[in-house]
Amino acid sequence: MKKKEYEKLLEPMQTRLAEMAYWAQKNGKRIVIIFEGRDTAGKGGAINAIHNVLNPRQVQIAALTKPSEAEKTQWYFQRYIPHLPSAGEITLFDRSWYNRAGVESVMGFATKEQVDQFLEQVPIFEKQLTDDGILLFKYWLCCDQEQQEERFKERFEDPRKRYKLSPMDAGARDKYDAYTQAREKMLKASHTKNAPWTLVDFNDQKIGRLTLIHDLLERLPEMKIPEPDFKLDPLAEKPKKEKYSVVKPLKPYRTE
Amino acid sequence: MKKKEYEKLLEPMQTRLAEMAYWAQKNGKRIVIIFEGRDTAGKGGAINAIHNVLNPRQVQIAALTKPSEAEKTQWYFQRYIPHLPSAGEITLFDRSWYNRAGVESVMGFATKEQVDQFLEQVPIFEKQLTDDGILLFKYWLCCDQEQQEERFKERFEDPRKRYKLSPMDAGARDKYDAYTQAREKMLKASHTKNAPWTLVDFNDQKIGRLTLIHDLLERLPEMKIPEPDFKLDPLAEKPKKEKYSVVKPLKPYRTE
Amino acid sequence: MKKKEYEKLLEPMQTRLAEMAYWAQKNGKRIVIIFEGRDTAGKGGAINAIHNVLNPRQVQIAALTKPSEAEKTQWYFQRYIPHLPSAGEITLFDRSWYNRAGVESVMGFATKEQVDQFLEQVPIFEKQLTDDGILLFKYWLCCDQEQQEERFKERFEDPRKRYKLSPMDAGARDKYDAYTQAREKMLKASHTKNAPWTLVDFNDQKIGRLTLIHDLLERLPEMKIPEPDFKLDPLAEKPKKEKYSVVKPLKPYRTE
Amino acid sequence: MKKKEYEKLLEPMQTRLAEMAYWAQKNGKRIVIIFEGRDTAGKGGAINAIHNVLNPRQVQIAALTKPSEAEKTQWYFQRYIPHLPSAGEITLFDRSWYNRAGVESVMGFATKEQVDQFLEQVPIFEKQLTDDGILLFKYWLCCDQEQQEERFKERFEDPRKRYKLSPMDAGARDKYDAYTQAREKMLKASHTKNAPWTLVDFNDQKIGRLTLIHDLLERLPEMKIPEPDFKLDPLAEKPKKEKYSVVKPLKPYRTE
Repeated sequence: MKKKEYEKLLEPMQTRLAEMAYWAQKNGKRIVIIFEGRDTAGKGGAINAIHNVLNPRQVQIAALTKPSEAEKTQWYFQRYIPHLPSAGEITLFDRSWYNRAGVESVMGFATKEQVDQFLEQVPIFEKQLTDDGILLFKYWLCCDQEQQEERFKERFEDPRKRYKLSPMDAGARDKYDAYTQAREKMLKASHTKNAPWTLVDFNDQKIGRLTLIHDLLERLPEMKIPEPDFKLDPLAEKPKKEKYSVVKPLKPYRTE
Repeated sequence: MKKKEYEKLLEPMQTRLAEMAYWAQKNGKRIVIIFEGRDTAGKGGAINAIHNVLNPRQVQIAALTKPSEAEKTQWYFQRYIPHLPSAGEITLFDRSWYNRAGVESVMGFATKEQVDQFLEQVPIFEKQLTDDGILLFKYWLCCDQEQQEERFKERFEDPRKRYKLSPMDAGARDKYDAYTQAREKMLKASHTKNAPWTLVDFNDQKIGRLTLIHDLLERLPEMKIPEPDFKLDPLAEKPKKEKYSVVKPLKPYRTE
Repeated sequence: MKKKEYEKLLEPMQTRLAEMAYWAQKNGKRIVIIFEGRDTAGKGGAINAIHNVLNPRQVQIAALTKPSEAEKTQWYFQRYIPHLPSAGEITLFDRSWYNRAGVESVMGFATKEQVDQFLEQVPIFEKQLTDDGILLFKYWLCCDQEQQEERFKERFEDPRKRYKLSPMDAGARDKYDAYTQAREKMLKASHTKNAPWTLVDFNDQKIGRLTLIHDLLERLPEMKIPEPDFKLDPLAEKPKKEKYSVVKPLKPYRTE
Repeated sequence: MKKKEYEKLLEPMQTRLAEMAYWAQKNGKRIVIIFEGRDTAGKGGAINAIHNVLNPRQVQIAALTKPSEAEKTQWYFQRYIPHLPSAGEITLFDRSWYNRAGVESVMGFATKEQVDQFLEQVPIFEKQLTDDGILLFKYWLCCDQEQQEERFKERFEDPRKRYKLSPMDAGARDKYDAYTQAREKMLKASHTKNAPWTLVDFNDQKIGRLTLIHDLLERLPEMKIPEPDFKLDPLAEKPKKEKYSVVKPLKPYRTE
C-alpha cells in the first residue's frame, strides 16, 4: 500500500481513536491493548500509530526490560501489574506477560513447568481483570517467514535499524516453526470468551495497522466528541511575539 | 516546510539518533531530555519524532499526570526521580519539574514561596544529576501568539484534537505575556553552565523539530554503529508460511 | 498471663522464628502472613513480636494507608501486589485486601457489589499466589466485646494510645455484631483448602500471641540452623576503644 | 541497666513519642530518622523501641536490601528517595545512603571516587530535604570493640541470632579502626548545621536507647495530645461474645 493512500485511510481512524480516548476519560474506562507477534512483525509501528494521536498523559507504553534477579523470583505477573491503568487511562503493552509462552519457551529461558503453569494461570488472571471492568484487547501480529527474512536483511543493512539486531535475533530465524507451535499452544490456552485473541496479518504493515486499528474501533462503542462547551473568544489585544532576554533561540536548521 | 522535504532532511538524523541509542547502550550512558514550552508549541510531536525511531525498551516518555494528595506534600522533585534513567536508558520528559515555574506559577497553583524555592533548588538538583554523569538536555519550544492562536483554533475545530482542549487552556490564551515573564525568570535561575537551556523556534514545527534534533546530535560525540559481528546466513530451508489452527487472522481492512 | 511467664514461653519460639527466616533465605521461600481481626484485638503487637526477632532487611510490614484517588479506580488487588515477597522474603500484612470484606463493608465504604465481587475474586487470587509457591498464612484475631470495650477505654485514658483513637473508632463500637456477620460471610467465601483461615482467641493478648506463633511454627517444616561454617578467631590485637575527633557522643541519659 | 528500670524510664518517653506522632499527623510534618553505626551496636533494637509504640500506618522502617544491577547504575540517592515521607509520616532508616561512606568504603565495594563524590553530594542533598521542611535526625550508634566482640560471640552461640552472622561479618571484625576512620571522614563532610549528626554511646544498649529517644524528644516542640473531643458512651446493649460458625478458633497454647 502506498503511503499516501495509507495516510488517507488512517486519518478518519485517528479521529475515532481521539473519540475513544475522550470516552475513556469521561467514563473512567480502563483500556489495555496487548501487542504480541513475530519479531519484525511491526508491533512498534502499530503502537506508535495509536500513541502518536493520543495525549501522552493518558496513554502509556509498557515495554518492560528483562526482569531483575529479585523480580525473577516473584509471582510471574507481579512486575506487569503496576502498569495496569487507572480510570481514564490506556496502556499499550509492547510484548507482555505472554513472553513466557513465546520467546522464553522457544529459547529455553523458562522451564516446561513454568510455561505450563503460565498457560494455566493466564486465563484466570485475565478474567480477574475483565471482571473488574478493564477493557482488554489482545493482538497477535503475523507475517510469513519470507517477509521476516526481508525485514531482517533490511535491519542488517540499514544503519538506522542495525543496532536493533543481535546475534540472538539472528539465531532465532531458524525457529519460525517452533514459534508457530508455541503460538498455537498459547492460543489454545488463552483464547477465551472474555479475553479473546485477534490475529492480524502484517505481511503488509500499513494494511496490518489499518486492520488492527479498524478492529479495535469496531469493538468500542461509538461516541462523538461533543462540541466544546466554551468559546475561543478573540484575543483582547494584538497577538504578541516571542521576546528573549536571557537566552536566544537557536538559528533554525538550514533548509536551503 | 513541505512534508517531503522534512522527511528527506529528517532521515539522516534518524540514523544518527539510532547511533546515539547504540552508543548509550554500549557505554552505559544515561540521557535525559526535557521538553518544555508554550502550549501548542509542539512538544509531543518532537518527542514522537525521537521516540519512534528508538527501541521502546530503551527509551521512556515521562508525561506525569497531576500529583496525588500525598505527592503534593512530598519533596517537590520526589515524584520525578523514579523516572531518571539507568545505564543505557533515555528518558524524554514531556513537561517536567519546570511545571512549578511555568503553569503552576502563572495559574496560581503554587505560592510565590514555592516557586522561589523551586528556582533556588533546581540548579542544585540538576547539578547533582550532571555531576553523577547524567547527560541532561533542556529544550524550550517557542512560538508567537499568532501561531498559538491558529493552533488553538485548529484544535477547537478538529475532532481529532478537540478533546485535548479544555476551558482552562482557553483561559490561558490571555496569559501569553505572563508565561513569557515566567519563562525569563526561570531561565535566569536555571540556565547554568552544566545544565544550559536551548530555545528552539517552533513557529514552523517541522523546522523546529529538525533544529532541535540537529542540535542534540551536534552535542553528542559522533559514533558510528559498527558493522554487525555476525552474519545472516541463508535459511537452511524454504521460508515458511503462517499456519493457523486455533484462531484465523482478521480479513484485511478493505483498501479498494 | 504474667509477663515473666510469657517471655519464658516466647523465647524458644523466637529461636524457631529465626530458623524459619534462615530456612526461607536459604531455600528461596516466600512467606506472607496476614493479620486481620477486631479493632484492638492485638494485630500490631503480634506483628511486632515476630518482626522484632527477624532481620529487617528480610521482613517487611505492609500497613497500607488509604488508597489515593487513582488507586481507588484500579483493580482492587493492584496496590497490595507490589508488597508480595521475592525469594527469601517475608511480608507481614497489618490488615490486608480483606479490608473490603470487613471495615469497608460494615462502614459502607464499598458497595454490596464491590464486596460480593471481592468475595468471588479473593479465593482465585490467593490460589494463584499459593500455586506459585508463596506460603500464605491468614490469621484472624478474635476478642469478646467486653475485652474490646476495656481496651477502648484504656486507649481513651492512656495518653500513649489516645491519639490512635478517632470518633470513627468510637462509632464502630456499636457494630460488633455487624463485624461478626461480615467476618462469617468472609470466612465462608475465603476459607479454602490452599489458603485456610486460622482464628486465634486474643482475649488474653499474650496467650493469643503464643498461640498464633506456635501454630505458624507447627505448620512450617522443622529446620535447624546449622553450626556456622567459619570461626570467630581471636582478634589479632587488643580490642579498640571508640575515639572521636569531629563530634562527641551525647552524655548518657541520667539513670540515677 | 536492669530491664525493670529501663522499662520504667522508657514509659514516659513512649508517651511523648505518641505525642510526636500525633503532632506530625495534625501538622503535616515529615520526620526522617537515620540510624547508622557499628555492626552489633543496636540499630534494630532502637528502631523497634520507637516503631512499636507508633501506628504502623504512619511509620515506615526503610531497611533496603542490596541494589539491583540497574539500581547500581542510577544516581546513588535515587533508590532511597521513594522512602521519604509524605505529610504526617515518619521514616526510620535502618542504615541509609551513608552505606557508601561506611561499609562500601571500608570493604571496597565502592571506588574512592564514588566515596568522594558521595561525601561531596550528601550535604547538598540533605540541605534540599531540610530546606523543603523535612525534619531530619541522624544518629550514629557507637560501641567499643570489646562490646562488639562480646556481641559477635553471643550471636555466634545463640541459635536465635546465629543466622544473622556471615563470614563477611566475621571478616569485618579486624577493621574496627578502618570503620572509625571512615566514620570520622564522613562526619567531617556531613555534620552540617541543618543536618547535624548525633553520636550515642551504645556500650549499654538500654542506656543508649534511652539517650537517643530522650535527645530526639528534646529537639521536638512539646505538644500535649488534646483530650478527645468525643465521648465513649456506654454501649446500648450487653457486650457480645464471639460466635463462630465457619471456623473455630485454635485451642490456646497450653500454659500449664
